[in-house]
Amino acid sequence: MDGQGRFIRIDDPADPRIAEFTAMRDRDLAGRGDRFIAEGRVVLQALVDAQAGDARFVLEKILLLENRVEGTGDLLDHVEPGCPVYVAGRDVLDAAVGFAMHRGILAVGRHVPPASFDAFLSRLPDRALLVAACGISNHDNIGGIFRNAGVFGADGVVLDSSCCDPLYRKAIRVSVGAALRVPFCRAGSIAEMVRSLTLNGFEVIGLSPQGSQTLSAFEPGRRVALLAGTEGEGLPADILERLTTLRIEQAPGMDSLNVATASGIALWQAACRMGRV
Amino acid sequence: MDGQGRFIRIDDPADPRIAEFTAMRDRDLAGRGDRFIAEGRVVLQALVDAQAGDARFVLEKILLLENRVEGTGDLLDHVEPGCPVYVAGRDVLDAAVGFAMHRGILAVGRHVPPASFDAFLSRLPDRALLVAACGISNHDNIGGIFRNAGVFGADGVVLDSSCCDPLYRKAIRVSVGAALRVPFCRAGSIAEMVRSLTLNGFEVIGLSPQGSQTLSAFEPGRRVALLAGTEGEGLPADILERLTTLRIEQAPGMDSLNVATASGIALWQAACRMGRV
Repeated sequence: MDGQGRFIRIDDPADPRIAEFTAMRDRDLAGRGDRFIAEGRVVLQALVDAQAGDARFVLEKILLLENRVEGTGDLLDHVEPGCPVYVAGRDVLDAAVGFAMHRGILAVGRHVPPASFDAFLSRLPDRALLVAACGISNHDNIGGIFRNAGVFGADGVVLDSSCCDPLYRKAIRVSVGAALRVPFCRAGSIAEMVRSLTLNGFEVIGLSPQGSQTLSAFEPGRRVALLAGTEGEGLPADILERLTTLRIEQAPGMDSLNVATASGIALWQAACRMGRV
Repeated sequence: MDGQGRFIRIDDPADPRIAEFTAMRDRDLAGRGDRFIAEGRVVLQALVDAQAGDARFVLEKILLLENRVEGTGDLLDHVEPGCPVYVAGRDVLDAAVGFAMHRGILAVGRHVPPASFDAFLSRLPDRALLVAACGISNHDNIGGIFRNAGVFGADGVVLDSSCCDPLYRKAIRVSVGAALRVPFCRAGSIAEMVRSLTLNGFEVIGLSPQGSQTLSAFEPGRRVALLAGTEGEGLPADILERLTTLRIEQAPGMDSLNVATASGIALWQAACRMGRV
């Protein structure tokens, strides 16, 4: 840690240098454009790691509660010198952010999306496992899908255009930082996504309670994309009829699984069968 | 449906006949004692079914938004005549309940707990699958565990004394009504729970990232209880060392699974291997 010279004191909640954090109140920033808010030590760690590892993220600024400075030193050692680190007292931070939910550690990150979906796919290894998320509009669910993708070592998550933003604050939090660790890419409509995946050698597997094969009997090939749809509607019938479909065996007559849980079960099975875990 | 005579009009939000619903504002009722609030059509349906099926629940009263009456008729046909059905306009209902989140369908239910944990266990079939939840303090997670228990046809959920209430409003909602469909019982401390389960012929399986066997290799016997602990701490070491422990295979170095997701994966595998789904 390079001493006190690193820290920039903020005494005015309206200081324009921390305006992005103030905008959290209105959710102006969160989930809009490519900038996002990272909260808490685990998520900031993920952002610092992601920035060091590749060029997917830029860490733009950090805002710390003054009593969190000491415990954050080892993490700041890996933050580039050009990234400002602002420090404020509790009153200023609460007034700026608008509530006391910030855990004392905040950062603004910027996502640098892949140049295109094809560019994203071209960088994947020969043996690859993806989750393809379609129409997931709930931040808990998208966060849960990323968390599972991280736990089971998936190579990425691809999102159709109607999925919500995995970099929305709650989604990042629920993902326990995996939204910053697991590479992801937007991929247009479901049909466009399926077409590109297929052209890139992926077996696209539709997860559906009406799937024609059981997950237990699934024997994955070298490149697998697990397609998971919304909980209410599921995947569109015209998409499913062109795909291999798998059902996660369940007791008859019961309600369906939560989509994030379904992704976890299918990822675990695929990762085991592919010898990845 | 027995016509308009069934419905009792409420015009005053402070009417004492709907006081339990008004208490939702302060969470006085929700999760205290054995009474609970059921919200929405799916959950009321589960409560009506549960009441008809066995004596685990009593449906005490229903409160409907006036424009939901027509669509609820088929459900009310199965409600005992002694259960009052109150009807109110939107202004009265919003003022009584305190917010506009009630979906227009509310009920007060009462849980009739088993006489004892042993009494609960004695009623289970010879081949049985349980989830044993320990220290789950998050309502999303307890709701998710019940949802998974329902989907995979578990015979019940047993809860140590430190688990939160599965009949808390949010837990019921997240469970999609499974908290009312899947039998459950409190079981004292974890050690007491494990002892009773073992005495009743259950193989108690501790789910842990440090488990000695893999879930893939798990060959369940006739009676299985899957023990799931808190996400932060996990299961206590002195409990784990006396149990068969299973780890859900995952990529090295990643964070752990969410506990509800872990329960879903383990339940699916157990239910498949036990020939239950």
